[in-house]
Amino acid sequence: MPKQLPLVEQTSLCCSPLMRRPLTEDQSVELARVFKALGDPVRLRLLSLIASHAGGEACVCDLTDAFDLTGPTISHHLKVLREAGIIDGERRGTWIYYRVLPTTLQTLSAVLMAPDQAAPVTP
Amino acid sequence: MPKQLPLVEQTSLCCSPLMRRPLTEDQSVELARVFKALGDPVRLRLLSLIASHAGGEACVCDLTDAFDLTGPTISHHLKVLREAGIIDGERRGTWIYYRVLPTTLQTLSAVLMAPDQAAPVTP
Repeated sequence: MPKQLPLVEQTSLCCSPLMRRPLTEDQSVELARVFKALGDPVRLRLLSLIASHAGGEACVCDLTDAFDLTGPTISHHLKVLREAGIIDGERRGTWIYYRVLPTTLQTLSAVLMAPDQAAPVTP
Repeated sequence: MPKQLPLVEQTSLCCSPLMRRPLTEDQSVELARVFKALGDPVRLRLLSLIASHAGGEACVCDLTDAFDLTGPTISHHLKVLREAGIIDGERRGTWIYYRVLPTTLQTLSAVLMAPDQAAPVTP
């Protein structure tokens, strides 16, 4: 299991857009960690390949053909996504199967929304 | 004026969630550039301070008190946000006033949405 992301537990942050009030230092550290994990083209492509794969999950064996990269390099990027709470992995037989953890991406999506797009937030 | 972000011009990417189909290499490079700019706690706090400031804009003079950082360091982070198309700046008198460019954040927000949350996209 990945480390549970504090940011998705912070109901004050979840669905509270970035634009409505200043982030605290702690909130900004948590969010930056996830955005940084997304700030790499290979990781973004891995994420979209996993998410759009049949059944919503994929193993490294399904992913390597899309990249001119070694297996260990791809595994490193998958580890970064996993540690950021963006994907989770489950070993079944020889392979680890990865799937997207939608809550983390939904939280980021809500944080970036303009205030008039977002659901009301209790103060 | 900031460089126009190709990603917000790509209607096929705008509002097409990451999870629906694999990103192309070009799309992932553009998106990663913006996520990387957001992948820093100081830049996230600057962004939320600007966005939530009275009138939706702020100058460096409004921002420095929130940080234990030098003016040049804050200016560097503002430049990164500006070059990523996340904020824009306009000089008026002594100061440059910064405001958020909502289209870029709306695009990122839409990209991260689960497919069932997003508006229909033409193929």
